[in-house]
Amino acid sequence: MNLEGMRVMGVDPGLTRCGLSVVQAGRGRAVVPVAVGVVRTPSDAELTERLLRISRSVGEWMDDYRPDVMAIERLFERGTVSTVIHTAHAVGVIMLAAAERGVPVYHYTPSEVKKAVSGNGRADKKQMTSMITRILGLAEPPKPADAADALALAVCHCWRAPLIARASQLGAAGHTTNFVSSAHH
Amino acid sequence: MNLEGMRVMGVDPGLTRCGLSVVQAGRGRAVVPVAVGVVRTPSDAELTERLLRISRSVGEWMDDYRPDVMAIERLFERGTVSTVIHTAHAVGVIMLAAAERGVPVYHYTPSEVKKAVSGNGRADKKQMTSMITRILGLAEPPKPADAADALALAVCHCWRAPLIARASQLGAAGHTTNFVSSAHH
Repeated sequence: MNLEGMRVMGVDPGLTRCGLSVVQAGRGRAVVPVAVGVVRTPSDAELTERLLRISRSVGEWMDDYRPDVMAIERLFERGTVSTVIHTAHAVGVIMLAAAERGVPVYHYTPSEVKKAVSGNGRADKKQMTSMITRILGLAEPPKPADAADALALAVCHCWRAPLIARASQLGAAGHTTNFVSSAHH
Repeated sequence: MNLEGMRVMGVDPGLTRCGLSVVQAGRGRAVVPVAVGVVRTPSDAELTERLLRISRSVGEWMDDYRPDVMAIERLFERGTVSTVIHTAHAVGVIMLAAAERGVPVYHYTPSEVKKAVSGNGRADKKQMTSMITRILGLAEPPKPADAADALALAVCHCWRAPLIARASQLGAAGHTTNFVSSAHH
């Protein structure tokens, strides 16, 4: 189960600001930063135009950096419903960009990301930024917050991926056992 | 302000069933049906795969029928949040398909559609289906409900479009007046 070299694209989704990052898994728990940035769309533009810009930017990033997998924040009921709906529109086009390129998508809640990266599911922004800066060996803390969140999502997936791979291997082994045992009946 | 011949694509969005329709505006309030159908995606498929299928189906419909405009149901807080989020993902990829083809998108609430089509914002499914069947001169009522809703959205836009066009002309005239008057100062 060697995941060394796996490239992960982290996405902190939003219509006004969408954080994007790419990292690469190194040896053991080492993670190497590749790229980080924020796509912005003007709030006075048409919704269709904003979705088109996000779709194109995410598509360009995927074509440039060729990630093996995408890690994106899982949406849940917080803030106003209209904000959640707008963010969900953006998530739809971002997931579509991944699907069109055959890239699998994993979802993580903010507390899963905090727990994975800092060991504390309730870590604050400052603690998270400090951890991400140290883990990735960055010269200075990533800015703005959306960029730091996108990096944290990608690091979270790098560290969760071995567990996911092991669980799915166990799942596959279980299925095989069932098949063999039913063949004996 | 002649909108005769305008083709409208109506969309009743959903991840499991997405109603699609195309109608064409005729003389006065006449509306001619062109196509109606439902795109289904299996609930046990990956979310990315489902969004990809919806995106491709909507894209194929748009390329086949070349609508001038899209009318889609406006989402609002009803049902469970997770259903709204899933539907909003679908709406995101549907709006993107329109944006990629330069097709403007208009949103209508269910009560706006009911009011426009039947004169009653609280009309029930049966009344709406009966009105749509009569307006479009269909041999039998459209099925399933998602298909009928998609037709109702398209008819709603056909009848609202002249008002929208008039309002935007008045808006433009207002701007011109302001410009002229400020040029005189």
